[in-house]
Amino acid sequence: MGELLDCIKPHVRELKQYSLKPECVRIKINQNENPWDLPQSIKEETLRKVAEYSWSRYPTFSAHSLHEELARFSGWKAAGIIAGNGSNELIQAVLMVTLGPQTRVLINEPTFALYRQISRILGGEVISVPLSPQLTYDIDAIITAINSLAPTVTIICSPNNPTGCLIRREDLISILESSNGLVVVDEAYHEFSGQTVVPLLDDYPNLVVLRTFSKAMAMAGLRIGYLLAAPQLVQQISKAVLPYNLNVISQTAAQIAIERYRTELTRLVGLICTERERLYHGVNEIRGITPLESFANFILVRSTVDPRSVFDQLLKREILIRDVSSYPMLSDCFRVSVGTPEENDSLLGALQEIYG
Amino acid sequence: MGELLDCIKPHVRELKQYSLKPECVRIKINQNENPWDLPQSIKEETLRKVAEYSWSRYPTFSAHSLHEELARFSGWKAAGIIAGNGSNELIQAVLMVTLGPQTRVLINEPTFALYRQISRILGGEVISVPLSPQLTYDIDAIITAINSLAPTVTIICSPNNPTGCLIRREDLISILESSNGLVVVDEAYHEFSGQTVVPLLDDYPNLVVLRTFSKAMAMAGLRIGYLLAAPQLVQQISKAVLPYNLNVISQTAAQIAIERYRTELTRLVGLICTERERLYHGVNEIRGITPLESFANFILVRSTVDPRSVFDQLLKREILIRDVSSYPMLSDCFRVSVGTPEENDSLLGALQEIYG
Repeated sequence: MGELLDCIKPHVRELKQYSLKPECVRIKINQNENPWDLPQSIKEETLRKVAEYSWSRYPTFSAHSLHEELARFSGWKAAGIIAGNGSNELIQAVLMVTLGPQTRVLINEPTFALYRQISRILGGEVISVPLSPQLTYDIDAIITAINSLAPTVTIICSPNNPTGCLIRREDLISILESSNGLVVVDEAYHEFSGQTVVPLLDDYPNLVVLRTFSKAMAMAGLRIGYLLAAPQLVQQISKAVLPYNLNVISQTAAQIAIERYRTELTRLVGLICTERERLYHGVNEIRGITPLESFANFILVRSTVDPRSVFDQLLKREILIRDVSSYPMLSDCFRVSVGTPEENDSLLGALQEIYG
Repeated sequence: MGELLDCIKPHVRELKQYSLKPECVRIKINQNENPWDLPQSIKEETLRKVAEYSWSRYPTFSAHSLHEELARFSGWKAAGIIAGNGSNELIQAVLMVTLGPQTRVLINEPTFALYRQISRILGGEVISVPLSPQLTYDIDAIITAINSLAPTVTIICSPNNPTGCLIRREDLISILESSNGLVVVDEAYHEFSGQTVVPLLDDYPNLVVLRTFSKAMAMAGLRIGYLLAAPQLVQQISKAVLPYNLNVISQTAAQIAIERYRTELTRLVGLICTERERLYHGVNEIRGITPLESFANFILVRSTVDPRSVFDQLLKREILIRDVSSYPMLSDCFRVSVGTPEENDSLLGALQEIYG
């Protein structure tokens, strides 16, 4: 045979693998997880139910009863919903059915790295619109790019990871109305913003909304996401979603978490939002660092000290944050997830030492 | 906006969605599942362990400790292994990093429908080599097609679903040596054949082996598969595997099942193989149907009665089989999974009534 890697597409060979080094630490605030575990009662009910299932049997072909629950939960129709193995799988499915070598996807950078990664693997051309100097969406630039370059897909992460900015309803409407392609809004962090764009689905059939159970829902370990869109679009996107993509245990846990969301999970979301404001003010009082306003469960922090050094100094104290200094525009930034009150106190104490 | 579905790639719009209607039945022998549940001791240990985890935390980035276990289990190096959310996800990853509009994938048909489905979504050209009239691999035709059309990927499902044939070692070597592209062997059913092509990985860096926990391992509900290949190839394929693709519970169950495979699962595989032979002879004695030799946990049956009618008549008796009559070459065939002894007796009794 010839050179082994010749069968790998050139633009895949060029890509660096997206990866994250695991670290064993006391305070883990690098992945925007819910700092509290899923409530014990939800875990116990899940384990009790799944103990009775036959694990040797496939899950249902598409998670139909979960789709019905998600419909009630989100206020959108079940025929317009796909549940996935994390929302990453659904981003990938949307891009698989739309992108090829002659197509373009518009993203705002800095943002979640996977949009670019998957688009490049699929051979799509990435149009990158930089955020404004204030690190919020540059709506004029987005609309100009849509008008001139006609992307097949525009992706808006809102609240945006890792900056925390939130798209305004009227701005999103302008984007939806300018676009002949799909507009994907990744609402992974929407619960912390108190807002959602789901009501726009009725009027804008080119809108696709992505959500996850990995943040507010405290189930990152179980890998559940969902997509909401017009049923005729969902039919097409479903073709790229692998059958039996969601295991029985995660499906069960998701359904129980939905039932108990109002009574057991909203309280945690409220606590995280309260802590976010406290952490923001605490960081703001430390000379040498400036927090950005955030609508998510994390805060981006500008630093006069090299973020890589801050990362190392915090790691020595067993606090793991996210060094985002390699992202475009963020060479002087790091990102911290909002932790429990005790974790946030520890972080603030450590930052005071480092910058004091 | 223009026509909504214009943003979906034309060859995706043309595809029918792969789907399976759920049926509630007494005897479910349509999906080649293990008819026995995962042993209770494995389920209990899994549930005990996962109760202690924090479900709000992401799994490890790539399932590193599971990769180490799979290495010991399979006799291949951990750096050459990727675990996935079912082997479907790994087939998709291989095709994502290799296929584009100018590339070809060779499959043998009839075979597992997903190879064609994913290849078409990715815009690859599918070269279909029909099985021989005896419904086994047509090795000469495969090698001729490889030599003249140079597919980037050749996929061999062995044992083949839905026919049950097994590729011979020397035939696979001929294919590997003829091919400049990758040769993927899907070994979903290998435990029932008593054979594996894994030892060939050392000599053939273009070989990729896929395996699953959904059949012999009795864990279809938990969605676990794995891929074995040269580490340099695995590095490239990993770029298309989404981070955190495997939830913590399935990872845990997989590790426990591996540890207990020899003591608790091989016995079930042995029982299934014994029952397969008994079922084969039982079917063979019924006039009007002829079973095919099978190296898997299912049997393809040629029928003088329209398979759709057989399907319906069995469903009335609460026995769910797989009607494969829409597959190429199989218009007179249905497929039955090997069930428990009692299930196989019920099936044989029902078939005697239908054909009597």
